This record gives sequence, C-alpha cells and structure tokens, in this order.
Amino acid sequence: MREERSLQPLIDDALAETPPGRRVWVALSGGLDSSLLLTLAARAAHRHPRPLYALHVDHGLQQASCEFVRHCRRLCDRLGVPLFIERVSVDMTTGRGLEAAAREARYAAFAARLRPGDALWLAQHRRDQAETWLLAALRGSGMRGLAAMPMARDWAGRRVARPLRDLPRARLERAAEAMGLDWVEDPSNLDEALDRNFLRQRVLPLLESRWPRAEASLARSAALAGEADVLLGELATLDLTACGADPARLALPVLRALSAPRRRLLIRHACQRLELPTPPAARLATLDAQLHARRDAQVRVAWPGAEARCWREALYLERPEPGLPAGWQVDWDGQTPLASPQGRLRVRLAGCPCREKGHYLVRPRQGGEVMHLARRGRRDLKRLLQEADLPPWRRQALLVVWDGAAVAAVIDPRAPSVLVVAEGYRAEAY
Amino acid sequence: MREERSLQPLIDDALAETPPGRRVWVALSGGLDSSLLLTLAARAAHRHPRPLYALHVDHGLQQASCEFVRHCRRLCDRLGVPLFIERVSVDMTTGRGLEAAAREARYAAFAARLRPGDALWLAQHRRDQAETWLLAALRGSGMRGLAAMPMARDWAGRRVARPLRDLPRARLERAAEAMGLDWVEDPSNLDEALDRNFLRQRVLPLLESRWPRAEASLARSAALAGEADVLLGELATLDLTACGADPARLALPVLRALSAPRRRLLIRHACQRLELPTPPAARLATLDAQLHARRDAQVRVAWPGAEARCWREALYLERPEPGLPAGWQVDWDGQTPLASPQGRLRVRLAGCPCREKGHYLVRPRQGGEVMHLARRGRRDLKRLLQEADLPPWRRQALLVVWDGAAVAAVIDPRAPSVLVVAEGYRAEAY
Repeated sequence: MREERSLQPLIDDALAETPPGRRVWVALSGGLDSSLLLTLAARAAHRHPRPLYALHVDHGLQQASCEFVRHCRRLCDRLGVPLFIERVSVDMTTGRGLEAAAREARYAAFAARLRPGDALWLAQHRRDQAETWLLAALRGSGMRGLAAMPMARDWAGRRVARPLRDLPRARLERAAEAMGLDWVEDPSNLDEALDRNFLRQRVLPLLESRWPRAEASLARSAALAGEADVLLGELATLDLTACGADPARLALPVLRALSAPRRRLLIRHACQRLELPTPPAARLATLDAQLHARRDAQVRVAWPGAEARCWREALYLERPEPGLPAGWQVDWDGQTPLASPQGRLRVRLAGCPCREKGHYLVRPRQGGEVMHLARRGRRDLKRLLQEADLPPWRRQALLVVWDGAAVAAVIDPRAPSVLVVAEGYRAEAY
Repeated sequence: MREERSLQPLIDDALAETPPGRRVWVALSGGLDSSLLLTLAARAAHRHPRPLYALHVDHGLQQASCEFVRHCRRLCDRLGVPLFIERVSVDMTTGRGLEAAAREARYAAFAARLRPGDALWLAQHRRDQAETWLLAALRGSGMRGLAAMPMARDWAGRRVARPLRDLPRARLERAAEAMGLDWVEDPSNLDEALDRNFLRQRVLPLLESRWPRAEASLARSAALAGEADVLLGELATLDLTACGADPARLALPVLRALSAPRRRLLIRHACQRLELPTPPAARLATLDAQLHARRDAQVRVAWPGAEARCWREALYLERPEPGLPAGWQVDWDGQTPLASPQGRLRVRLAGCPCREKGHYLVRPRQGGEVMHLARRGRRDLKRLLQEADLPPWRRQALLVVWDGAAVAAVIDPRAPSVLVVAEGYRAEAY
C-alpha cells in the first residue's frame, strides 16, 4: 500500500489546484494508466469536490472495443463517476498514418464533449514522455518538438493536464496492483507496425538493458528542451518588440543588427504568431542572406503557405494572395459583406445618411483611376496609394468600388480595410 | 569517382578558410575516416598551401597499436605529410571510464604538440554526431550536451574543426573505396563494453531498420540544440547586463522581475562565467524560491564547489572559502607574495619609501581591532568594514596585517585586494 499512498497526494493536489466548479474529465481508455488515474481522481474528489466525469473514446478500430467499453462502465459504476462514450471514426485517408489519424479523432471527440473552461486529464506517464521525445528526435525536431508533452497546456479554451507525466510506468503498475485494480490490456499496444510500439517493445528495452535510467534521462532532456523552448520564446518576444512589435512587418535595421541565429528565431516566431507555416531551414537561410540586399524591392522568398518580402526597410511576412480571376467583378449594396474571391469582406460603404443601400460595382484595380477627395479635389489613385505607404505588391490586389462612373472607395481585401474614400461617402470595416 | 569529386571541394574550402601560415594538424588514427581526411587534406594543400602535419596518438591500449603506427607511416610517406606520433598512457584510475580517460589522454597529447594558433582537424562524421547526441540524451543533458560536437570551436588557443561532421558515414566509405584507400579496422570498435560501440552496433542499426533517416534526423536535432544553446547564451548575456554585468554579484530586483526559467538560466550562465560548478536542478529550485525571502541575510544555498548568498539586494555566487586554521598566523615582509591558506596572495605593503622590507605579522581578523587612518584618525575596524560594503561572511575571512602593536592593513584574500590601509603605509595588489 506504500505506492498507493505516495500517488494519492499527487492527484489530491492536482485536483485541489483545479478551480472549484470547473468540470474535470478523465480520458479513460480502460487500460492500466487511465483506470488508475480515474480511481485516484475519484478518491481525491471526496476531499476536494469537483464535478468529475470519465470520457471514453471508442475508435471502433479493434475487436476489443466492446471489452474496453464494458470495463469502463464497470469501473465508473463502482466509482460513481458518470461515463460518457464518444464513438469516432478514424479518417485513414489523410496519409499521415494511423496514429496521427486516431489522435486527431480523439481530440475532435474531446472538443465535442468538453466546454471551454473544462479540464481534461490524460494518463500519460514518463515512459510515454520518453517515447514522444525519441519520436521527435527521429523526425529531427527542434526544441518545440523535443519538449514532448507539457505537464499542462491550454487547448481551445480547455485545460489539458497530465498529472502522471513525471512518474515511471513501473510505479503506476505497482500502485495499480497494490490497489487491486483491474484493467484491459490493449492488444494494439503489441502491434509493432505502430512507431510508438516499436520504440516501446524494441528500442527502450535495449537502451534500458545498458542504461537502466534511460527513461528518466530522456524525460529529463525533454523537460530541459521544454524550458529552452520557453526561453527562446521570451528572447523572440524581446526582439519582436525591438523590431516594432508587429510580426507581419519587422524593422529591417533592427533585424539586421541581431545575430544570425536570433534573426532566424525571430522570423520563425513571427510566422507562428501570424499562424503562417514556418520556413524550411534552406528557405530561411536564403531569406536571411537576402536581408542584406541593397535593393530590397527585389527580395521575395516564398515557401508553401507563406512568403517574405522586403520593402522600405521592413520585412513583410504574409500568406500569398491568390490573384483575382480575369474579368472578375461583383455587384454590391455597400451593406452586406462583400463577396470577394478572398472571402466575404466585412466592410461597409454608404453614400449619404439617407441612403440605406447603394448600387455599386466592385472590380480589381486596373490603373488610371481618379478619385474626388474631400478638401483635396481630383487625385490619381496611383499617387494616393504611394502616399498610403502600401507595399507595391499589395496594390495589385486592391478592389475598386464604382458608383456609376465615379470611384467611391478602394478596399484592401487583406486586412480587410477601406483604404481611400471619395468625397460624399462614409466607410468602415467591422 | 563521383563521390570523391564531391568531397574534395569541401576540404579545399575548409583549408582555404584556414588563414595562410597557420599549421594544420590532422588527427590520424589510421582508420577509414582519418585516413580519408588526411588524403583529402594533402590534395587540398596543393591548391591552398598550408603547413600540414599528421598526428597519431598511440594509446598503447591494444595489440593492434603497431599495425596502426605502420599504416600511418606508410600513408604519410605516400602523401608526403610529416607524421608525429605521441605515445600516451591512459589513466584508468579516474573512475570515469575508459572512453573518458582515453579522450583526456588524447587531448593532452594534442595540447603538447600543437602551438596556440594551430588548427586541429578531427575526422568525426555524422554518425559520430548522432551517437554523441544519443549519449548526451542518455545522461539527461540540456542544450549544451545535446548540441554534441561543434563544427569548429576554440580550444586553449587552438582551432578544433570537424570538416566531415555533417557527412554520412556511408558516403565516406564510398569515397574511400573509390579512391582506392586502405586503412586499419580498429578491433576496439567492436567492443560493446564501450557505450559508443553499443550504440553503434546495436541501437543505431535497430533505429535505422525502422527509420532509415535516423542518423540524419538525430544530427539535425543536435544542430538545432546547438543553435538553441547559442541563443540561450545571448539571452543570458542580455539579462546579465541588466543585472549589473558582474556574474559574481547579480542585482536582485532585476533578477526577481525575470521569469523563473530566465532566472535559472542566468544563474547557471553566471556560474559558467565564473568557472564555478552549476547548481543541480533541485538546489537551483531551492535557491530560486529563496530569492524572494524578506530577510535576505539568511539566504545561503550551497552545492559542491560553489555557494550562493543574498545580501543588500544582490545575489553573490562564489567558491566557498575554507575557514582559516585555528591559531594560524604568518610572518611577512610586505614584498614577497603573502603565503596564506588560500594560496600565495599577490599584494604588497610598505611603510615608507625608504624601507624596502617590513616585518609584519599576519593573522585572521578577531574583532575589536582599531586603525589609524589618514585624515580620519582612530577608527573601529568593524565600522570601516561596514562602510566598505563588504558582505558579512567575507568579513570573517579577512587577514589583518600587524606592524608591532598597530594594524597596518586589512587584506581580502578572495580578490585578493587590500581593503583598508593605515596612515603611513602604501599598499597594492598586482
């Protein structure tokens, strides 16, 4: 019973740290780890009452599915914990393999059942952590990947926690046996066609035959990589602030003065902030070499899903804009969202306070347009855009709103925003 | 011949980047890797003349020693490269294992033969890098260890380079065969009692049976860890500057305002700058928790070889001072280095310009001493030390220099420096 006593306080503490009233869901597969976690959580809930639920995701992948469900029902009945079962179908057509597809289906099930603010407890332990770390290393990962699984993280408004993450698997086994628990062995755990099982069945035992503390050491390197990742994030944030604080537009003079590793870090970090794909190493090296180019108007480095350009001593990071289809135009009333090839743009335009809806025609910019501006009179649009400090490649993608034969406004679909408004019109983005 | 052509330019470039006149030494074991590197280097030296030498370290550990030496002589004769042989004895009594002891003996031999300014080329390649990385992970290393072997680094005034580091071993084999090279197989490479050989013979083949690109991936993770290590060094340097730029004395208000990971990074970094052992993780956590203590006079956290204390809103990092033996005292002439228990202190003291040597007695401070100061008169030493902003624990270790019945000076053996000088004396540290 010694082992049981030493695990319970850990789970008591984890529950006590969960704000009262927040619902706690234990992901219950029916195997040893999650059966133990749920049992410990149910006992902890006597001391620190929280609404506690079990969630079983039935992948329907194996013959053993029914046996897992039966075990989960029995365990939850005995503990008095409500059980929810989510049946999912695993999409094997993504080409990313069974493990990735099953993980995706599992998280979709979590998202469907948990409300924002809920806590999700996963039963992963130190051996899982060591395996995750090795898998990341075998993909050649950097710090983000080598950090493996965090102890706790926010996920779509939910809080995902792994209270057992730093415990050796052997200790969980001893505790479960001491508590007289039963559980279902997952036959798929033996399937060496799965990368993780190959590591578990073949690689880790070989390492541990020589380095008995291998599991602990790899988990420790993962923790240090996690700390390094946090620190690199802090360094990148410092440098981003120095470069103007806008990840989409970094001040080149500041960027150039950083060391090359810091420039690379900041560019990757800015892409992550913008939810753009980060550049592959070779592209990043190309971009970095070009940051020092004399005539920055020429610099454009693209990679799948994103591109970088230099203009007027700033580095722009953005999603490539699909060109407008030839001859595209659309009618618009100025009030409903504007249906453009870039999606529905949330902008409004009105002629005068008495007119509710207009009859506009929206077309790509073609060159040669003129506008009448309040207090400034007739102006070339080209000159106005130069004044607007808009990079030249973005000027290609602008939409011109025509009211009969006159230009009423110019819209930048990227922001979206209304760049210029003619005299007698009012406009806003919302 | 395709493989050969693709390796030669790499070595040509490496030699071209070595400043002319600098001597280049290739560490030649006689195995495939170093025989190939020397051959390529000798060819490169035709295009980029540099003084090129081969250095064979004979560990005398194996029967095969003679065969290695014979091969090295034959190869160097053929290439026209002068060969130096260093015979070393491996100290097996260090308790750190054969591999570490052999490495230490090897570097001692390099240090004996190479002059500062010389370049040392090692033939390690990508598989060696992947192994080094795995060994670091199996010790639970952080970024410094996971960075594995740098492509080039400065070592005691020499430049150590690994021109083949990023090349797969298989490519070296094909090149050597295409060139018709011969080499000696090292029978100790098969000895699985050595950790590295166990990885090479058992672990890497198992990983590669499943992940054919394992060697490349692990080496890539090592490169990313190396970049992270450089970046963490830059972050720590920024934070050190903000904390006052003295690693031995960090400003606590600035330190406290940093995130916990950054505080830990800075404390480890400061210890490295001071050549102190870094605190183990648990000690570092204890120290970090105590940085917020109200009464910082109480804070003292020690680990083998170093200790940390707080005083007057600063964190002091230092080597623990051995207490002075009870009753210790020593005669001193004021001119020769002062023979203290902390070593020979390079300080001088003279009474007046005409007296060359004094007759002083040096003793630990005992309390109650008074001194006569120029323009200030008779003062309690205790009060003077309080004015000197000297942390209280350092006041215990001070040495008082007596000239008969009068105190002539007070010496801080740590710096070493002369803290207070009585009227009529002159003192200096040198």
